[in-house]
Amino acid sequence: MGSAPTDPDTPTGPMPAADFVAALRDLSDRYWDRHPFHLRLHEGRLTKPELQLWAANRWYYQRCLPQKDAAIIANCPLPEVRRHWLDRIVYHDGRDAGDGGARNWLRLAEAVGLDRAEVLDERHVLPGVRFAVDAYVNFARARSWQEGVASGLTEMFSPGLMRRRLADMREHYPWIGEEGFAYFTSRLAVVAGEGRSTVDIVVQHCGTREQQEAAVAALAFKCDVLRAILDSIDYACHQIAP
Amino acid sequence: MGSAPTDPDTPTGPMPAADFVAALRDLSDRYWDRHPFHLRLHEGRLTKPELQLWAANRWYYQRCLPQKDAAIIANCPLPEVRRHWLDRIVYHDGRDAGDGGARNWLRLAEAVGLDRAEVLDERHVLPGVRFAVDAYVNFARARSWQEGVASGLTEMFSPGLMRRRLADMREHYPWIGEEGFAYFTSRLAVVAGEGRSTVDIVVQHCGTREQQEAAVAALAFKCDVLRAILDSIDYACHQIAP
Repeated sequence: MGSAPTDPDTPTGPMPAADFVAALRDLSDRYWDRHPFHLRLHEGRLTKPELQLWAANRWYYQRCLPQKDAAIIANCPLPEVRRHWLDRIVYHDGRDAGDGGARNWLRLAEAVGLDRAEVLDERHVLPGVRFAVDAYVNFARARSWQEGVASGLTEMFSPGLMRRRLADMREHYPWIGEEGFAYFTSRLAVVAGEGRSTVDIVVQHCGTREQQEAAVAALAFKCDVLRAILDSIDYACHQIAP
Repeated sequence: MGSAPTDPDTPTGPMPAADFVAALRDLSDRYWDRHPFHLRLHEGRLTKPELQLWAANRWYYQRCLPQKDAAIIANCPLPEVRRHWLDRIVYHDGRDAGDGGARNWLRLAEAVGLDRAEVLDERHVLPGVRFAVDAYVNFARARSWQEGVASGLTEMFSPGLMRRRLADMREHYPWIGEEGFAYFTSRLAVVAGEGRSTVDIVVQHCGTREQQEAAVAALAFKCDVLRAILDSIDYACHQIAP
């Protein structure tokens, strides 16, 4: 697997920025948009219990994101990056108890028929989902802040998916009330800009080949996390209704 | 979910030892012996590629066990427990490079047709398996040594399963050479005794109700880890050959 480190042909200098960004973008194949569970979601083939399982499990991911972002800030010695990254925590948690991205996800969970209490006590969260999300938070704690930031670059791939999801869900699941879609409508407004500025940070602060490769590996890892979440949900759906 | 902590009827004293052990044994329902993937394994319904996927992924679990056990020792202030637990590391790693439980698992992987190199470089390890096993190692690092020890009590449930596995695999997969079963034959010799003495340690050192309940939760967590490993493998099998 791979060349020996002493191979004289192994490039050791940093990639040009355009090649580095291309290497990151190449990972779009591993993004979760084409996961079998998402395909069924978009094609309108999920039952209401399956949508509920998805919403309750995805909640665990949403609720861990501010801690993941705080772990990145905790590892970062640069005030300009910390200042910028702080907006993520505010975005998820909101400025007040009633708003924020996590709260909007709860609205979706309620719109598919879950009680707020059964989402918050995490009774529906599958062990495999918990392990995958915890791995993401632990990654942000244990790795360099650049790797933590790079792991968030799945945002580059998400605006198109989110637009399609909003349209497909409105079409195929008309029983979901419009208030359930606040997460997507408000997220769409910010995510494109986030993806752009995050790439800029990663390119600027990964100056060595080793850092660039670690950033690409971090984004691949994050794709694995997202797909493992859906693997667990999809497997549980098959166990319920084979 | 559960009574309020101020409920006057909530028992707060420690359970009698017999009740505590019964509460631990009650978790046998959550053990992985009746997981759909294990049922197929025992019924001889796995293809050779499926057996290979299982062996290569289970390798990642086997290879992490000595680090899990070292994390427990690292958290334990009692020399008599540390001295006892050290045998686990020796068991898995062996005294010399050629032996030990992990090495015996490699023999099984080779007997089902894998190259040693493709096992060791972990190319077949599924992300969900990695996240579950890493969660187990992190649990041992982050929790009390008593919880770490209690999480290993799935051993109480394993001797019967391992005897059956040996018999069923010899019968249904006769192409697997006998040298492939060294893991099971040598493990069977030690695991019954391990389970007994581990229960004794847990009973002796979980003196409060809170510690007892944490021990039961730790064993439930471990059952979730084991089942999540098989969920990932089983899901991947269905993706390969639906």
